[in-house]
Amino acid sequence: MLRPDINDLLTQTGPGTPMGDLFRRYWQPVLHTDELPEDGCPPVRAKILSERLIAVRTPEGEYGLMDEFCAHRGVSLFFGRVEEQGIRCPYHGWKYDANGQAIDVPSELNNSEFCANVKLRSYPLVKVGDILWTYMGDPEKQPPLPTWEFATVPSGQTYTSKRIQESNWLQALEGGIDSSHVTWLHGGGPKGTGLEADPLFAGSRGNKYNAGDVKPFFEVVENEGGLLIGARRNAEEGHYYWRVTPWVLPNFTMVPPRGDHPMHGHFWVPIDDENCWAWSFDYHPTRDLTEAEREAMIAGAGVHSKNIPGTYRPVANSENDYLINREKQKTGEWFSGVEGIAIQDSSLQESMGPIVDRTKERLVATDAGIIKARQKLRRAVEALRDKAEEPVGNVPEHQRIRSVAIVLPADQPFVEGIGDAFQAREGVGQTTV
Amino acid sequence: MLRPDINDLLTQTGPGTPMGDLFRRYWQPVLHTDELPEDGCPPVRAKILSERLIAVRTPEGEYGLMDEFCAHRGVSLFFGRVEEQGIRCPYHGWKYDANGQAIDVPSELNNSEFCANVKLRSYPLVKVGDILWTYMGDPEKQPPLPTWEFATVPSGQTYTSKRIQESNWLQALEGGIDSSHVTWLHGGGPKGTGLEADPLFAGSRGNKYNAGDVKPFFEVVENEGGLLIGARRNAEEGHYYWRVTPWVLPNFTMVPPRGDHPMHGHFWVPIDDENCWAWSFDYHPTRDLTEAEREAMIAGAGVHSKNIPGTYRPVANSENDYLINREKQKTGEWFSGVEGIAIQDSSLQESMGPIVDRTKERLVATDAGIIKARQKLRRAVEALRDKAEEPVGNVPEHQRIRSVAIVLPADQPFVEGIGDAFQAREGVGQTTV
Amino acid sequence: MLRPDINDLLTQTGPGTPMGDLFRRYWQPVLHTDELPEDGCPPVRAKILSERLIAVRTPEGEYGLMDEFCAHRGVSLFFGRVEEQGIRCPYHGWKYDANGQAIDVPSELNNSEFCANVKLRSYPLVKVGDILWTYMGDPEKQPPLPTWEFATVPSGQTYTSKRIQESNWLQALEGGIDSSHVTWLHGGGPKGTGLEADPLFAGSRGNKYNAGDVKPFFEVVENEGGLLIGARRNAEEGHYYWRVTPWVLPNFTMVPPRGDHPMHGHFWVPIDDENCWAWSFDYHPTRDLTEAEREAMIAGAGVHSKNIPGTYRPVANSENDYLINREKQKTGEWFSGVEGIAIQDSSLQESMGPIVDRTKERLVATDAGIIKARQKLRRAVEALRDKAEEPVGNVPEHQRIRSVAIVLPADQPFVEGIGDAFQAREGVGQTTV
Repeated sequence: MLRPDINDLLTQTGPGTPMGDLFRRYWQPVLHTDELPEDGCPPVRAKILSERLIAVRTPEGEYGLMDEFCAHRGVSLFFGRVEEQGIRCPYHGWKYDANGQAIDVPSELNNSEFCANVKLRSYPLVKVGDILWTYMGDPEKQPPLPTWEFATVPSGQTYTSKRIQESNWLQALEGGIDSSHVTWLHGGGPKGTGLEADPLFAGSRGNKYNAGDVKPFFEVVENEGGLLIGARRNAEEGHYYWRVTPWVLPNFTMVPPRGDHPMHGHFWVPIDDENCWAWSFDYHPTRDLTEAEREAMIAGAGVHSKNIPGTYRPVANSENDYLINREKQKTGEWFSGVEGIAIQDSSLQESMGPIVDRTKERLVATDAGIIKARQKLRRAVEALRDKAEEPVGNVPEHQRIRSVAIVLPADQPFVEGIGDAFQAREGVGQTTV
Repeated sequence: MLRPDINDLLTQTGPGTPMGDLFRRYWQPVLHTDELPEDGCPPVRAKILSERLIAVRTPEGEYGLMDEFCAHRGVSLFFGRVEEQGIRCPYHGWKYDANGQAIDVPSELNNSEFCANVKLRSYPLVKVGDILWTYMGDPEKQPPLPTWEFATVPSGQTYTSKRIQESNWLQALEGGIDSSHVTWLHGGGPKGTGLEADPLFAGSRGNKYNAGDVKPFFEVVENEGGLLIGARRNAEEGHYYWRVTPWVLPNFTMVPPRGDHPMHGHFWVPIDDENCWAWSFDYHPTRDLTEAEREAMIAGAGVHSKNIPGTYRPVANSENDYLINREKQKTGEWFSGVEGIAIQDSSLQESMGPIVDRTKERLVATDAGIIKARQKLRRAVEALRDKAEEPVGNVPEHQRIRSVAIVLPADQPFVEGIGDAFQAREGVGQTTV
Repeated sequence: MLRPDINDLLTQTGPGTPMGDLFRRYWQPVLHTDELPEDGCPPVRAKILSERLIAVRTPEGEYGLMDEFCAHRGVSLFFGRVEEQGIRCPYHGWKYDANGQAIDVPSELNNSEFCANVKLRSYPLVKVGDILWTYMGDPEKQPPLPTWEFATVPSGQTYTSKRIQESNWLQALEGGIDSSHVTWLHGGGPKGTGLEADPLFAGSRGNKYNAGDVKPFFEVVENEGGLLIGARRNAEEGHYYWRVTPWVLPNFTMVPPRGDHPMHGHFWVPIDDENCWAWSFDYHPTRDLTEAEREAMIAGAGVHSKNIPGTYRPVANSENDYLINREKQKTGEWFSGVEGIAIQDSSLQESMGPIVDRTKERLVATDAGIIKARQKLRRAVEALRDKAEEPVGNVPEHQRIRSVAIVLPADQPFVEGIGDAFQAREGVGQTTV
């Protein structure tokens, strides 16, 4: 269990909060590039870390992210008109460039002089891969651009989606680093009828190991930028099956791979304290995704979801009990009764309430990854707050990371056994079972 | 009027509140048996007295009622899978029996030892009649099972329905013991065009008496377990028509009968402080309900309601102004413009707001029953809180009760006149006019 | 910017607030006469200045406005039955006359004596023009009935509509007295593609002047009852085009006229602190509206709106982003992308949030009218509160006002130039360009 004040510390990310300050030291995904599909397209609302922002793409192709509200009288720039070099408020014609700098206040005689003193809070908005990223902290401290492998491989090798999750970000992260639930929620328990049905997971020996051992042993080791969370299960005689989940501060995780399927992972980005974006990616480090794989991802298979058209809200959501199918739950076809990994996760994580009361939980040995991650998060937050200590995880060397699935001899520690398999290396395939 | 603190005392029933403590000394209806229709069926959410609970029926037929949330990390067991002997959380496979006792935590080496220390808050869930009842208080103080006549007559003689009411329970109770409004809300005033139209009320001399005297005189007498509230109206020369409404603490009432129609009554069970279940029953003490009667009840006649399919929310509700028909209100066909007794009651009781401000009310002589019931409730709450005094109404002898409608000579006190007519006696018909 | 306490002072209008006290010294529009269409029609809920009221029209034709809730037990009289001389509560038959005076409490032996002491808070409800007006203040201070020209010209010459706006009243008022935004929001900026498309604005020279000068100069002069806000733009050589917007305390404004089109204006009436009624009128002082004009108004042209049938909520509203058309916004056909003056205003004013945080605004010279109006409002509120000083604007001589549009020689002050054009005079046409 967690003390209430520590729960608050880790879950609150608005401006001025300690965890909010930590988050603001990392590049975070804001929009899929599809959301600003062409130069001069309409602006898009983007709320992140409890800040209401507006994202623009000028006719000249410049991206910008700024305070949603006009400096003059507070009108939402969502209703603004994108024009050359920026966006114009439709109320009185005040115009801002992509950096939020006022560049035209038509009513003013000394227009340019006046403009010089009017600037909206703004943040960089940069395309890396299929994502537009922002950095919302002190410009002096701005880290290098993100170098995550999923975002830097050729576009044919990668696919990213997002969905809104109606819970605090930490609940989602805790699901992401929790290798233990795979057996049950996604796997169907010891009978293991779950993941084989998903075209993006089927046919891996790992499925069998997951189903075969419901008492995984956890070993969590420190890694630059975060943790490597190893979950050990029985494999063939004298061997263990290791699933190694990397977590990089504060909110990046990757799921251990299966066979030659693409690898996947997530960002859990706070919208406000009761909602987050579940970003989900799939990529293959050494080959293009097949047409069938991409189609399955678009259809919501694997870690992706089928969303209500025009929105990022899943079709299966809290209002319809995630379309739970009690018959398939009974037969065990879908152990949880809910279809698809993403919705299996969201249904349970949202069912805990927007911010789960962690004073009531009862953690066990298999929660070792969660416990360690919370400790590390807390130390990072307090170190930044109290000692201005630089956070980890926001530099390229911490981001070139992979998840690993491997079978090792019983007497070999996983950290030794995986060698540098957890490092992303161009042209080198994933380590997987 | 009521002081604000007394209003709070009587209307708040969550854990730890004095009235909540009182309620927790009584068996309360939770679900209709139809809601858990067969062994091993899906679990059902049940919120009662501001506690979020889950009701299960195991494959072996055992009923259970427990905390909605898994002890491990707080996932809602609504998404649980009912399996042999209990329900399994789909997140990590923790399994509980019908008493909320953990019986399998698959990740743990010392599984059974570990389980021994994990138990969800749980309450008995017992079928009596067509209802599943619970007792949420100190097990040491658990009273005998409910023995209300409507729940213990043969099933052919009884019918029970429920609907959600968007108001505090006390507003609903006060309607239930208020014989005075029958003339107006349900009867159409002195013209009396109301209840004759309902197949479950038509053809009774009582309707005529109700319409004929708009100045009922109230006599409220103490009874073991609660009150007998007598409303006296003029009948034939030298006679009075008495409607005797019993109230048994804290939330059971019965409506005085009419002719040979089935008798009916209600439980008003707090969901939380702003919502309650209106349970409504109809039964005949000595004969089966006719097919026509049962069909009328299912269709929502009498005290029952027509609900939105798949829910317990009435079709006529606050969002559609209860489908008020101003033309029928004008002609007086439906005096209130609203169709049916149940919705006539809910429309007005909900219109007061979720918890009516009783500091503003202006009570009159015909509110004598309400005034006495509040006093008695308050005394019971305070006696339990301050002196651990045992409540009344939770033992069989207080529950074998009936409402009565009778014509008595003008000089005869009603308590004398009705004799033991207010007592439920097997094989003896109701006393009615 | 405004200090938070002053923002509160000006935006809060509930009972007991200083601004609420000021508002309660003026006749305010409550309902369109269409809402109580005939003698004995159903009652209508009316919330105004945060008070929940019910409006009735008795079978004898008397209008009344009173507390929504019955004095007995708090039932909403919306469900009441309108009967001779008043309205009867359907719960126990308590009846009130149009003044909220109880006139029948059927259960009481001393009925009329009892009634004498039961009276609901009530206010006069008086028809002037197509509007039912109320005065909610001290009866001793009741001003003469409203004499606004739009409400007193023959009915063929005038048309009034209303819509709900989901913002505080002051945000709406500030839009109403802000002549500067006309060029942009309604006009399409310097290209001026906006208002010519509206049949109620087309063909006026004023449109051209508005588009031709994006740096209007503001001159605000005191007027009995409020302000005359002059916005000066360049016209032909040596001349200025003046738009003169009158504001009469606290919430009446008129838009400067164009050509021979009808003149229009607004009342912004607080419902509660986060919602207001936008009343919109159009009238011609010397001729009937043409059939085409009236049809256009009914269809939602000009200052009117197309509402969801059976409601006063615009079809284009916050839930559908006001049906913004990004293509038309891009081409400039509708500069803001939103159709129609009314929705252009509501979209932006609502986008500021229910009560805009005025500590963050950045006012400029063209906000002179807004600044002066706030000062004058504040002075009036404080003078009433602290010195019981009589407010202005609630007497006929302050209400006989018109907006003006005029071209004047460059050296002539507008107050001199318009002479008595801003005064409503029977049989004299508007002064317009």
